[in-house]
Amino acid sequence: MIMDPDAPSGTPEDAGTPAAPDQPAAAPSRQPSRRTVIAGAAAIAGAGGLTVAATSADTSQAAPAGAAAGWDACRTIARAILVRDEQDRPLVPRYADILLKNGLPRSRRPGRKVLIVGAGPAGLTAAHLLREAGHQVTVIEANANRVGGRIKTFRTGGHENATQPFADPKQYAEAGAMRIPDSHPLVTGLMDSLGLKRRRFHLVDVDAAGRPAQRTWIYVNNIRVRRRDYARAPQELNRSFGVPTAYESVPAAQIVRDAFAPVRQEIDGKQDTELVEGWARVVQRYGHMSMYRFLTEEAKLDERTIDLIGTVENLTSRLHLAFIHSFIGASLISPDTAFYELPDGTATLADALYARVKDLVRLDRRATRISHGKDGVTVETVSEGRGGSPVRRETFTADTAIITVPFSGLRHIPISPALSYGKRRAVTELHYDAATKVLLEFSRRWWEFDEADWKRELEAVRPGLYRKYQTGQTVADGTLLGAHPSVPAGHISAGQRTHYAASRTVTRDQPEAAEVIGGGSATDNPNRFMFQPSYPVEGSAGGVILASYSWSDDALKWDSLDDEERYPRALAGVQEVFGQRIEVFYTGVGRTQSWMRDPYAYGEASVLLPGQHTELFEHVRTAEGTLHFAGCHTSIKPAWIEGALESAVRTALEVHTA
Amino acid sequence: MIMDPDAPSGTPEDAGTPAAPDQPAAAPSRQPSRRTVIAGAAAIAGAGGLTVAATSADTSQAAPAGAAAGWDACRTIARAILVRDEQDRPLVPRYADILLKNGLPRSRRPGRKVLIVGAGPAGLTAAHLLREAGHQVTVIEANANRVGGRIKTFRTGGHENATQPFADPKQYAEAGAMRIPDSHPLVTGLMDSLGLKRRRFHLVDVDAAGRPAQRTWIYVNNIRVRRRDYARAPQELNRSFGVPTAYESVPAAQIVRDAFAPVRQEIDGKQDTELVEGWARVVQRYGHMSMYRFLTEEAKLDERTIDLIGTVENLTSRLHLAFIHSFIGASLISPDTAFYELPDGTATLADALYARVKDLVRLDRRATRISHGKDGVTVETVSEGRGGSPVRRETFTADTAIITVPFSGLRHIPISPALSYGKRRAVTELHYDAATKVLLEFSRRWWEFDEADWKRELEAVRPGLYRKYQTGQTVADGTLLGAHPSVPAGHISAGQRTHYAASRTVTRDQPEAAEVIGGGSATDNPNRFMFQPSYPVEGSAGGVILASYSWSDDALKWDSLDDEERYPRALAGVQEVFGQRIEVFYTGVGRTQSWMRDPYAYGEASVLLPGQHTELFEHVRTAEGTLHFAGCHTSIKPAWIEGALESAVRTALEVHTA
Repeated sequence: MIMDPDAPSGTPEDAGTPAAPDQPAAAPSRQPSRRTVIAGAAAIAGAGGLTVAATSADTSQAAPAGAAAGWDACRTIARAILVRDEQDRPLVPRYADILLKNGLPRSRRPGRKVLIVGAGPAGLTAAHLLREAGHQVTVIEANANRVGGRIKTFRTGGHENATQPFADPKQYAEAGAMRIPDSHPLVTGLMDSLGLKRRRFHLVDVDAAGRPAQRTWIYVNNIRVRRRDYARAPQELNRSFGVPTAYESVPAAQIVRDAFAPVRQEIDGKQDTELVEGWARVVQRYGHMSMYRFLTEEAKLDERTIDLIGTVENLTSRLHLAFIHSFIGASLISPDTAFYELPDGTATLADALYARVKDLVRLDRRATRISHGKDGVTVETVSEGRGGSPVRRETFTADTAIITVPFSGLRHIPISPALSYGKRRAVTELHYDAATKVLLEFSRRWWEFDEADWKRELEAVRPGLYRKYQTGQTVADGTLLGAHPSVPAGHISAGQRTHYAASRTVTRDQPEAAEVIGGGSATDNPNRFMFQPSYPVEGSAGGVILASYSWSDDALKWDSLDDEERYPRALAGVQEVFGQRIEVFYTGVGRTQSWMRDPYAYGEASVLLPGQHTELFEHVRTAEGTLHFAGCHTSIKPAWIEGALESAVRTALEVHTA
Repeated sequence: MIMDPDAPSGTPEDAGTPAAPDQPAAAPSRQPSRRTVIAGAAAIAGAGGLTVAATSADTSQAAPAGAAAGWDACRTIARAILVRDEQDRPLVPRYADILLKNGLPRSRRPGRKVLIVGAGPAGLTAAHLLREAGHQVTVIEANANRVGGRIKTFRTGGHENATQPFADPKQYAEAGAMRIPDSHPLVTGLMDSLGLKRRRFHLVDVDAAGRPAQRTWIYVNNIRVRRRDYARAPQELNRSFGVPTAYESVPAAQIVRDAFAPVRQEIDGKQDTELVEGWARVVQRYGHMSMYRFLTEEAKLDERTIDLIGTVENLTSRLHLAFIHSFIGASLISPDTAFYELPDGTATLADALYARVKDLVRLDRRATRISHGKDGVTVETVSEGRGGSPVRRETFTADTAIITVPFSGLRHIPISPALSYGKRRAVTELHYDAATKVLLEFSRRWWEFDEADWKRELEAVRPGLYRKYQTGQTVADGTLLGAHPSVPAGHISAGQRTHYAASRTVTRDQPEAAEVIGGGSATDNPNRFMFQPSYPVEGSAGGVILASYSWSDDALKWDSLDDEERYPRALAGVQEVFGQRIEVFYTGVGRTQSWMRDPYAYGEASVLLPGQHTELFEHVRTAEGTLHFAGCHTSIKPAWIEGALESAVRTALEVHTA
């Protein structure tokens, strides 16, 4: 079968079918021609029997799809990536003006009754904009005790009156959003306009003078090497993967950059329509590919090299997901990208967004059913009914609604009448990825120690202990857990000691003191990635580290463990990298967040599968009558606050000007 | 860059590297030449800079890989699929002889001390064979109260002394394995030899005379059609997906069969070495493909047709996983395949396997660390410490061990010294899929009712109620939940009624009585697939249906809901398909099983990602010194008891003859 890329794509729908109440709209397909044209031409052989074309149409795989229909879809995605309008003009300046300065445009029309489902950054921001523009706004939020969505800080107090999460009441740590890229103007601008003082988040560890040090560890295949040394001499570690000679001397990050280079050429140095078209070509060429396929078939990497870069550069767990997703992420998070964080936690941003609209927000109201039509929207809700209180129902009505619920959660909310075919498929199929964090508290910031610090502090536990750790002579029964005098009593249970003794690793080698501030280490043990805080918490000698940050399958494996079990295992994983002796500072207190298990998040973010950008994305954010859709999943910045804010302004505009 | 498929693959390893303690073995790569040869030829440009070949090497994508190295790997997988030895001879007759008749071969060597980790079907079976052959066997099992692994029946009593799971103590239902294909000789033979009476499991519903009826529903895109009617006239439902004209009259199952036909041609009608080579070609050609890629690029299907077959034939949630996995499954489960079940549940098989070795099994011993060497194996364990009892540690030693723990769980068990490179990658990367079941109990088997039965029973609730349901006039506040006099009091909480009223669907149309025995319905609502029991439970007028059986992303969305919340939602999903009136028989009791959340299963089964068969599988089952690896994940029948039994015999032989 020969494919004609210029043939009209799609197949005319039989508009006269009377018995299909939910016929999808007969819109021309926007898929790459490869997928739609072919099927339209599929041959029927015999009565009812269908012969699928044999597998020999190799030319179709070799040639990039180039038909007009596919191009339209790809340009739509490109504009969404770049946040451009249909004339390729940047939307961000207009969004920034609305969000940060002048609000929604003035209107003479009377205000409308607007219901916003979900009090994450998108819902809280849209609520503020619409109220300021004269609308009557109500926000319903499923959680009974907090707003902010996937902005969540384990902290004492805050708007959620959180009980003390760590042994030291001053300590806090991020369950969700923890770093804000400089390249996100809406969120950085919003923080500034709200008077929130931001400071640098050190994705790469720094020295005492704040200069990048790259002293954090890579601990892989039983080889421990500092990042700086690996960048200079990657041979030993690379050889441990058995990479081909050609790659032995190339650091993993460079291999990834080189692999992506031909793709980057499509966009680097381009502007405006050229840039949109460059991204559209990237989407068209690679949109249907997984990262695995890209690396094997486009970048021509062998499996050992993929193992190397997957392990060190965090690609392995998402190899089966869309290349486009990780490529966009890699474009964003380069070694040159500056990141920011908020002192006292990202939840201070949620606090500030909440303070503006607190009177509009109804907590403990989870949407369970949505009805919509020209006359308005009805949303039924239930309360959580926790703590023995009865489950209460309440029904909310409005002229129009903004739904910010992740599609993974929306899947379980009946909506009548049914949404369009495309939207239903998007709600059903949009892939959400797992991400899990395990946080551990220590009474001292041992990662900043030099050997003299270690000697002093270990001798304070017991004379001779420093040397015992150096020579692997310490007891293995868990009695040294939290043995330092600075560790407050009462947090390490007997069960935790037993679990710890039973599951801790048996490596007894003690690497030199880390001496790092901020930054993160990578390992092939289950912890995968660990991050130290960029700053001390004022008034506290201790600190909380992100002992494990994992995605996808890696995260789901942590999710199989009870919360309490995760801490000793996470500690063991950190010890493999930094050595056994850190145990003396462990306070016995950990916190963990499994985003896939969060009852209202239903996943870390919409990390799409191959082909889903072009197939589903255009249906994700289109309004359906009086229903509008916001949240980071309606942007091409899933998991980023910036994407949520883009969607807040977009839907506020939709509602305001509808 | 031109690829030479005959060039030697892989790259000689630098054997002289002293500092890499865990150098992977320099075995010749068995990957398809496309992946390994290419990388070996990658060009270095400049000092340390690496230029990845541009993306223009289209010939390599068009041509199927054909080099000897790739072929070897593919033949290995083919033999594993067919359970053949290296001379392509069937291993099953030998395995059956050992398992069902004569046991392991006689040996004059003294018995060895064997530790088996995990008391699922693989572990229990290997334990029996090895003990009979004169070895000293201990089996440790993490669960404190049951054996059987992913064989799990919700039932009263049993070896696990389970408390009554449903309102009717006679009722039971499967949390795990529920159907045994006739094409699995080891498990069917084992059931027979253990004296377990099996009976047909009706994957397709039957009439009163036991003939296939196909009266179950497909309820998709708001169209409800019986399977039999859909098979005869698929147009309305197919058009509701907007499939091209060519597919409008082709039932979804036929489209799938046709799509797979060119692949089947490689194997159909072949024998012995020809058959092995046919499967090897299938693996070589499609092993790196996801189902999504196969359907779009090989079968040339458009997205609407993929939506159709994905929804009706249960492909959607696994589109991103290996084509090979689903193809093998589809080859097995055809409409012609006979399935069996065990009266009183599949757990009766676990009972019987357990009875033979009960004295060898130590429950409540979860492996937390494994040390191994020439002198033997040491496994540390902890108890669950539930119910307030302290966590106990115990250490087991043996000459050799069989590890049946799924690799998803093994990932969190430190093993020293480290396993081989290939095994470590397999443990880290082998993909496990989610599967979740929601079971609901009813006081009457309403699915068997005709309209006269409905009228009689609904009038028994309240005169006029039959007609009220027919006309959509019943109250929506949950008071009719369990309203039939046959429903025992006390199981429906006020909270459940409130949740039910708030989240139930608003469809009020009442389809005709289902009148089905066994079989399953398919829907695009979150329930996805529902199955009725094939037989009544003796002495009970009620029944338990599998209200929702979902996989992968579909399953993870259920997993975000608390157990208690799942039941009213699952009921609402069943009502969408069968009508509102079934509510009167709901007892208020449900059971649910999330295999991804099971603390010791860590997933439903190893459903591999594209490329993992050829990349990882050969490393999955190879022994590492004194450690042997069993469990269904070491076969190419993941999730099937047959695969577990193959692995039990294989590893028992390995240990016995080592």
